Amino acid sequence: MLEQLQQKGKASIEPARPVYIKSTGTVVGKMEGEGPLASHFDMICDTDKFGEETWEAAESRMQKEAVALALGKANLQASDIRYIFAGDLLGQNIATCFGLMDYEIPLFGLYGACSTLGEGMSLAAMCLAGGFAEQVMVVTSSHFAGAEKNFRFPVEYANQRPLSATWTVTGSGAYVLCNEKTQVKITGFTNGKIMDYGIRDAQNMGAAMAPAAMDLIKTHLKDFGRKPDDYDKIVTGDLGTVGQEILIKLLKDEGIDISGVHEDCGMKIFDSEEQGTQAGGSGCGCSAVTLAAWYLPKLMSGEYRRILFIPTGALMSQVSFNEGQNVTGIAHGVVLEHVD
Amino acid sequence: MLEQLQQKGKASIEPARPVYIKSTGTVVGKMEGEGPLASHFDMICDTDKFGEETWEAAESRMQKEAVALALGKANLQASDIRYIFAGDLLGQNIATCFGLMDYEIPLFGLYGACSTLGEGMSLAAMCLAGGFAEQVMVVTSSHFAGAEKNFRFPVEYANQRPLSATWTVTGSGAYVLCNEKTQVKITGFTNGKIMDYGIRDAQNMGAAMAPAAMDLIKTHLKDFGRKPDDYDKIVTGDLGTVGQEILIKLLKDEGIDISGVHEDCGMKIFDSEEQGTQAGGSGCGCSAVTLAAWYLPKLMSGEYRRILFIPTGALMSQVSFNEGQNVTGIAHGVVLEHVD
Repeated sequence: MLEQLQQKGKASIEPARPVYIKSTGTVVGKMEGEGPLASHFDMICDTDKFGEETWEAAESRMQKEAVALALGKANLQASDIRYIFAGDLLGQNIATCFGLMDYEIPLFGLYGACSTLGEGMSLAAMCLAGGFAEQVMVVTSSHFAGAEKNFRFPVEYANQRPLSATWTVTGSGAYVLCNEKTQVKITGFTNGKIMDYGIRDAQNMGAAMAPAAMDLIKTHLKDFGRKPDDYDKIVTGDLGTVGQEILIKLLKDEGIDISGVHEDCGMKIFDSEEQGTQAGGSGCGCSAVTLAAWYLPKLMSGEYRRILFIPTGALMSQVSFNEGQNVTGIAHGVVLEHVD
Repeated sequence: MLEQLQQKGKASIEPARPVYIKSTGTVVGKMEGEGPLASHFDMICDTDKFGEETWEAAESRMQKEAVALALGKANLQASDIRYIFAGDLLGQNIATCFGLMDYEIPLFGLYGACSTLGEGMSLAAMCLAGGFAEQVMVVTSSHFAGAEKNFRFPVEYANQRPLSATWTVTGSGAYVLCNEKTQVKITGFTNGKIMDYGIRDAQNMGAAMAPAAMDLIKTHLKDFGRKPDDYDKIVTGDLGTVGQEILIKLLKDEGIDISGVHEDCGMKIFDSEEQGTQAGGSGCGCSAVTLAAWYLPKLMSGEYRRILFIPTGALMSQVSFNEGQNVTGIAHGVVLEHVD
């Protein structure tokens, strides 16, 4: 049976037919464009409004531009893409709905908080490897001001940010995935369940998401029969410094040491000391632009042979938070490998 | 190539390997339990709080109970389910996050507004037909009071409801899908793109969604080379009376007459005259409980041989609406057939 060939353990898939990343597009805001990865992004806007009147419309505009860039680099038109898997952090995915409308591509709207890119890549990989499409796209985005207003306080309120707070990245990353050979392939994925560690602090997303990352890594290594050193890097999405420390500690308690290979997109994208971003960057856009701008080129060149990419999400809303619910976490992991 | 066998036209799939519906669970609120389908639901709560303190927690509880019912009827445990595809209407899918957490099943969170069941069934069908799982679940829910508060006005405000308004169904439907033969199979699906017809009225969801349903039906019939009469019923999710009239008219303009076979879950679930629900029922829960309670038994018995089920979604949020964005629509269609 095909199932037995592809399914690994309780929560992982190793597709029988490989899936490849054909191109990416990255669009970021001003602050991301002043950070250490500035020269690696495709488009930097010198304001965070991207020519629009609202933060939400600005986020839609970023998705639209990121898709245009990814299509352009692959020399494709929107009509060459069979499905688009996309999401954002705003209520009812409005950045996605209004950003992608004009492309007229059948849409699967996703919500996995900041884990959405991993969720989307997993579903896109199933879709391609299962023979349901030849080319699809995955897109996510986030916007600092839109997220602050949605989850915490409007920026104008000038709320003090604790050291555990992360800075939501203003950015969008779009990916074209296909069945045709390129320099980077997806060779497996592991999908996470919701983890509740009793966190109630909306300014400490790292702590809320670290248990989900821990559980995902533990499950993944077990399902594939691997150890941390089988990866050049194990890259989480946006745990930041606080979440990283918790993740490494939680995994050590399980007898797994990732300290030598762990990196976090949220710690790569900003110079926290210089830019005042506290624990690091976060948001659906953080891992999307950092993977495309920083990690994929190293996988393409062969500097990295194999990485495990794990965007993590904190599941909460303004309403759930105000009603006293915990901030729970989820993670989805994708194995990316260099192709010779 | 497998692609060429399975892909139909621009937006449809006819899976090479059939996918089946094994069991369902339906949970509804007081008003749905007083409507014409009352005797067909698995569980009716005599208040809409389901023993919880908030509307959102009540919605989570409905999802939890619907899943328990579907698992129980299939004689399965949560650990037998490889993935769960789920979503709701609330910002950041909180009904889903807090409702499904305890099952510890890897989750793909979806957002397609009221079209989510069609989106989820399509992705679940790809997952099963592609060989990535043997059993998965699809779950959606909505809650009248939670939705009114989220999208319009809190119930306590006693806003007047125009005749075009629909009544969000308090309900959740859970489905176990599998590769093993049962009496109902999914033999195809068509996935929709976002359609903007310039609607700005959040009290007229039918008008916002009808163009998406029109486009989906037109694409579907073309992709499969079928006509409306090839279906015993073409069943939309929650267009209501206003949306139905628009849909039939729009399709007539395209030379397609569905008036003889069209039904709408929103018009089935309530007796609008008696219950004062204006244009009909709506919400993610409306199509989920009506399909399971009313249409599936008729497919199982063979009274219906083939139906096209099309839940439609209106894409908007409080924020997008207040910022003057249109209410756009999306639809996903699933072909369900009797198995002899």
